Amino acid sequence: MGSLPLEAMMPLDPETFAGESGAVVGFLADYYRNVDKYPVMANPEPGSIRKLLPDAAPELGESMDRILDDVQRDILPGLTHWQSPSFFAYFPANASSAGFAGEMLSAGLNVVPFVWTASPVATELEQVVVDWMASLLGLPERFHFKGGGGGVLHGSTCEAVVCTLAAARDRALSKLGHEGILKLVVYASDQTHATFQKGASIVGIPPANFRILRTSAESGYGLTADTVQRAVEEDVARGLVPLYLCATIGTTGLGAIDRVRELGHVARRYGTWLHIDAAYAGSAAICPEFQGNLDGAELADSVSMNPHKWLLTNMDCCCLWVANPTTMTDALSTDPEYLRNVGGASKMTTDTIDYKDWQIALSRRFRAIKLWVVLRRYGTAGMRAHIRRHIRMAEWFERVVAADERFEVVVPRSFSLVCFRLRPRFMEDKAVESLNRELLVAVNASGRAFMTHFVVDGKFVIRLAVGGSMTEMRHVRGAWELIKEKANELLAGC
Amino acid sequence: MGSLPLEAMMPLDPETFAGESGAVVGFLADYYRNVDKYPVMANPEPGSIRKLLPDAAPELGESMDRILDDVQRDILPGLTHWQSPSFFAYFPANASSAGFAGEMLSAGLNVVPFVWTASPVATELEQVVVDWMASLLGLPERFHFKGGGGGVLHGSTCEAVVCTLAAARDRALSKLGHEGILKLVVYASDQTHATFQKGASIVGIPPANFRILRTSAESGYGLTADTVQRAVEEDVARGLVPLYLCATIGTTGLGAIDRVRELGHVARRYGTWLHIDAAYAGSAAICPEFQGNLDGAELADSVSMNPHKWLLTNMDCCCLWVANPTTMTDALSTDPEYLRNVGGASKMTTDTIDYKDWQIALSRRFRAIKLWVVLRRYGTAGMRAHIRRHIRMAEWFERVVAADERFEVVVPRSFSLVCFRLRPRFMEDKAVESLNRELLVAVNASGRAFMTHFVVDGKFVIRLAVGGSMTEMRHVRGAWELIKEKANELLAGC
Repeated sequence: MGSLPLEAMMPLDPETFAGESGAVVGFLADYYRNVDKYPVMANPEPGSIRKLLPDAAPELGESMDRILDDVQRDILPGLTHWQSPSFFAYFPANASSAGFAGEMLSAGLNVVPFVWTASPVATELEQVVVDWMASLLGLPERFHFKGGGGGVLHGSTCEAVVCTLAAARDRALSKLGHEGILKLVVYASDQTHATFQKGASIVGIPPANFRILRTSAESGYGLTADTVQRAVEEDVARGLVPLYLCATIGTTGLGAIDRVRELGHVARRYGTWLHIDAAYAGSAAICPEFQGNLDGAELADSVSMNPHKWLLTNMDCCCLWVANPTTMTDALSTDPEYLRNVGGASKMTTDTIDYKDWQIALSRRFRAIKLWVVLRRYGTAGMRAHIRRHIRMAEWFERVVAADERFEVVVPRSFSLVCFRLRPRFMEDKAVESLNRELLVAVNASGRAFMTHFVVDGKFVIRLAVGGSMTEMRHVRGAWELIKEKANELLAGC
Repeated sequence: MGSLPLEAMMPLDPETFAGESGAVVGFLADYYRNVDKYPVMANPEPGSIRKLLPDAAPELGESMDRILDDVQRDILPGLTHWQSPSFFAYFPANASSAGFAGEMLSAGLNVVPFVWTASPVATELEQVVVDWMASLLGLPERFHFKGGGGGVLHGSTCEAVVCTLAAARDRALSKLGHEGILKLVVYASDQTHATFQKGASIVGIPPANFRILRTSAESGYGLTADTVQRAVEEDVARGLVPLYLCATIGTTGLGAIDRVRELGHVARRYGTWLHIDAAYAGSAAICPEFQGNLDGAELADSVSMNPHKWLLTNMDCCCLWVANPTTMTDALSTDPEYLRNVGGASKMTTDTIDYKDWQIALSRRFRAIKLWVVLRRYGTAGMRAHIRRHIRMAEWFERVVAADERFEVVVPRSFSLVCFRLRPRFMEDKAVESLNRELLVAVNASGRAFMTHFVVDGKFVIRLAVGGSMTEMRHVRGAWELIKEKANELLAGC
């Protein structure tokens, strides 16, 4: 595996491919064996890796062995280890053997299924797996291809939001004319992911027309129909057009749940597009006991969730379903000469779709094979077990936090996310905030776990999001021991 | 590798991972050994794979062996084989051993480097490789991080276009107010990729404000400064604002080249954002003899090209450089509480960037490690040899087509793309068009090669795009033999 003679360069020679890929598999298996030995959150001096590497790409090729040695020495120590069993930050990003196998098939076959002809089975497999996923989540028939809707695999929720916003916008502008863009208003809660506001900005909604509606502890920080109704009425009275409402199942900060059915009734009344963002918690909906959160989904225009978070599917994979695909393809279609199908066109049916018209980009990866391998390898039963296992761990963690009088659970747990803080009785609010900041810094600096935070009603809360592929009960127990240890040290100094 | 007992499910168990991943490596090596035995372009009955697969995901997990058997039996025959050495359609999508190794590392480490803290070395490695690439292409200092600009890895050119359009738009609207969006005009040629118009539509530019400027054979279908100047003057006279001009190096239809320097002068005069889309031909610019096409790039605001096309980098990878990153981050930044860095913030420098503010989505893959592995494994010399090898093959093909009096090269070859047609002297124009359609259908239906077409000045031309990782001279020769064989059959029937 030394440097290559230039003229003989055969970049897909099967023997070289097998040898070098095998070496990477071994490298990664070893990484998984040892991932819990690295500090979970990396904290290098900024710029240190840039100082370490040369200014230019090498003139001559180097061996894969040498490159892997450098990954080991220079790269691994500077990564934050999302696959560590003690990674409890943000939301999980599950890797799995099946997700990896699917990703390898996607990357190895390396087809680009932007139109049906460019890889027919890749397009059709995607239609099959998004229908499978829709069934698994218990989504209404109208989001299935067989029910007149349909789904697509994107890379991220933001892309799903941009595409559906563009669809809703163009549907509205077809009646209002383009100058109507200044009247379009979008609605979300103060718990909705920042991605939504960014998406609205990307599609040209005036910043003055983003409504960020207040939520409160009474509704568990879920958006209520009353709040939306009032905001919409005010806007309509001012001659504005209520375009799009984003409801979230399992917000990023707290795991809050917007009530889809009641929001759906308001949206229907005003012809407002209702999107359900279930990026994180949508995975839980494969278990019947969590499908109630999607009650009323038949009132929505679109739904999205990310198997790349908590459903064993390596980055990236976001399912988006729409009830009326034509609305989306009207906004996103192109038909350049160089992509037209010559010869096969007569065979096309209304079932034959070109996924380039369901997304932002023209090019796309064969993500469907990845999700298909995951669903087949683990089966519905295996995936439900995966979700329930983490929920049980989070339940346990919530229980022990609640039982320790120095701590409090700040909002009731949803799914596998626990939001808590250290709350010594004797301490003032201001001091409590800095105490928890210090606690989080100490926990993360230990290298033994990584958690992130949120601020709600002025309270600084620590988030423990369970869901790693390798996270077992002992790691959650370890996190609790670590938190208590650091809390003790801090309280001893008070 | 049978079905998994649910309670013991360990989706990243290192031994299972190594075993199953090894099986996929073997499967793919075998695929490469045999890829030239499949019809290059698949042409199944629409819906056939959907009929073949069950209606729902299985309840119980299945073995990886069984899944791979199904890929072999049900999936491979329905794919269009982009890695076939006789794939000459669209533009190439290079897979390589190094690109695959890099993709495995990205998928296996599965970190999500949206902010610096979320994986410091992943962010910094990206800064290093985009600077390496900028040097390789001979881009002006202003697009390097060390020159005050900087780059990012996106998934597609369309994303690069959307982000830079949003940047240009918001820079303009900060002066005009949001109602100014109705005055913004974007410019491209009739050869520019459809993706540009789609991008402009996504960011809310009024469809009436897309200017599609005519090109002609005299300029090799490149956009001229005069044409742009006239269009811009007319718009300015009508009170409109010339926002954004897209120049292309190597258009999709014909490989045409817009002259950057002269377009740059016009753009500068009107404060218009100039983007250079070198999606395909940017790869050639790693060879000094092709860098002249980028002459005048210092007048541009942004440049993009796709290593996932012709530079040995498996899908997906698009380099975008901007001269003034603040313009882009002003348009795309978000700062939600749950992503703030607690504790480490004091270490941040102006060098520390959060790539979420350079792209559409929040989440992102560790693409940098893929491009870094490719650059190191093959070296600058290896990659130049890869490009030049294909250029030589295309030169040969152009020569033999030109030498056969029944054929004509419709536009002079650029890079590795040859646009030609069958042109028997005795035949009328209308008949020539259908003759070439039939020729293309016959060539593709043979399964021995796959080409696509374009229409220019009413002429139906066949495109032969050389660039596959496994394409050797014998495959290009075989394509020419195939074309002559099918042409003979068609002409015999005339």
